Amino acid sequence: MAADAMQNTLPHFEALFFDVFGTTVDWRTSAVRELKAFGRSKGLRKDWAAFADKWRARYEPAMEEVRSGRRPFTILDVLHRESLIQILAEFSIAGVRESELDHLTAIWHRLDPWPDSVRGLHRLKHRYIVSTLSNGNIGLLARLSKRAGLPWDAILGAETAHAYKPQAQAYLRNAAHLALKPEACMLVSAHNSDLAAARSFGFRTAFVLRPTEHGPDQTSDLSAAQDWDATAGSFEELADKLHCPG
Amino acid sequence: MAADAMQNTLPHFEALFFDVFGTTVDWRTSAVRELKAFGRSKGLRKDWAAFADKWRARYEPAMEEVRSGRRPFTILDVLHRESLIQILAEFSIAGVRESELDHLTAIWHRLDPWPDSVRGLHRLKHRYIVSTLSNGNIGLLARLSKRAGLPWDAILGAETAHAYKPQAQAYLRNAAHLALKPEACMLVSAHNSDLAAARSFGFRTAFVLRPTEHGPDQTSDLSAAQDWDATAGSFEELADKLHCPG
Repeated sequence: MAADAMQNTLPHFEALFFDVFGTTVDWRTSAVRELKAFGRSKGLRKDWAAFADKWRARYEPAMEEVRSGRRPFTILDVLHRESLIQILAEFSIAGVRESELDHLTAIWHRLDPWPDSVRGLHRLKHRYIVSTLSNGNIGLLARLSKRAGLPWDAILGAETAHAYKPQAQAYLRNAAHLALKPEACMLVSAHNSDLAAARSFGFRTAFVLRPTEHGPDQTSDLSAAQDWDATAGSFEELADKLHCPG
Repeated sequence: MAADAMQNTLPHFEALFFDVFGTTVDWRTSAVRELKAFGRSKGLRKDWAAFADKWRARYEPAMEEVRSGRRPFTILDVLHRESLIQILAEFSIAGVRESELDHLTAIWHRLDPWPDSVRGLHRLKHRYIVSTLSNGNIGLLARLSKRAGLPWDAILGAETAHAYKPQAQAYLRNAAHLALKPEACMLVSAHNSDLAAARSFGFRTAFVLRPTEHGPDQTSDLSAAQDWDATAGSFEELADKLHCPG
């Protein structure tokens, strides 16, 4: 859809909520880089890309323990640390000190943004409230954003909703924290499933293609699965489409 | 205390938490300006400075209803609107429409910063996590900060703690949201009572003098009531004392 047509057909909305891991930051490249550095420091030779992928693969089942009610709400830093310990065992890496576990867990605080993220957000911020809507916890998101220079107006997500996406309350409670109805909010995500949930709860939706989030052989989320309200190849292109000055 | 001496005697801390109303923004000047504009639009002649002071005076008793447990946690926007309706009646102002009540309540979203706040925060942000720690709700703080250009790393306060200052949880839960122990946090406030509470819960403390928060005849908080860890006349001076580059 042409930008002008979209602007004319999209009802007014006030806030843009952003998924973070994969949409705003390139978690995999950053994690592999840090894991390789850890390996060098310990004299370990491992497939660190596979390590990163397995660590990330523990993300959904770990959150599902909370979503299902089998476990009380637990922040992502804690889930990440527990998963790390499991993956270290799978890779037969022993003797990692507590301080090293802390440092490795905080890899998720030190993820680099995609090249267009910071500049795109600055442009979008001129017109909209820009907030995270991430399963990351507040401390993780605040440190990651500070390091990366991401200029959020608010740091919201699972911890401020006590619910993990894609559960309804993760979207609805954070809209309510800004005193907004769902239709006044747009979710920006590289994940069709995230957008589908947000749409089902009344949010506007924008798909941003991140074809290398999972590395060079990515097979998921390579195109828009629904007629999202907007689609773009970068935050800069999204800013163009939403008529935010360059 | 000389800046170098202070730097040497202050243990390391990671985050600066800021009181907002009075410390970061000049609520009274902004509120009186907006109330005068409302009066002109309605053809009303009232003492709008007295109106603003009475509205603000309802702040503590309204929060006390929540602190005492007589009322479940209720965000400040709601308390502000209820107080507004009471003060309008006291001033014999009738016939105010719902949309006007909304607009007036949101005066607290449109407060101007003190002249040193934005530049001081940018400097302090180079070295520390900078966050609100305000009794304002998230939506209020996000909109106020966006309009004023306040570059917070996180928007925290009563709503993220479900407790109003000076209750312990308002300080401790927000420190925990950043995964910090109290001694890794410094509260910056123009209010000695706020600092006394924060210190009693283990925070570092910085007093910033705001001698006209309550107008030209202010009698409270004109000097430091205790030997706070730092005292300053502005956020810029605080940045100097904490060795944050200009």
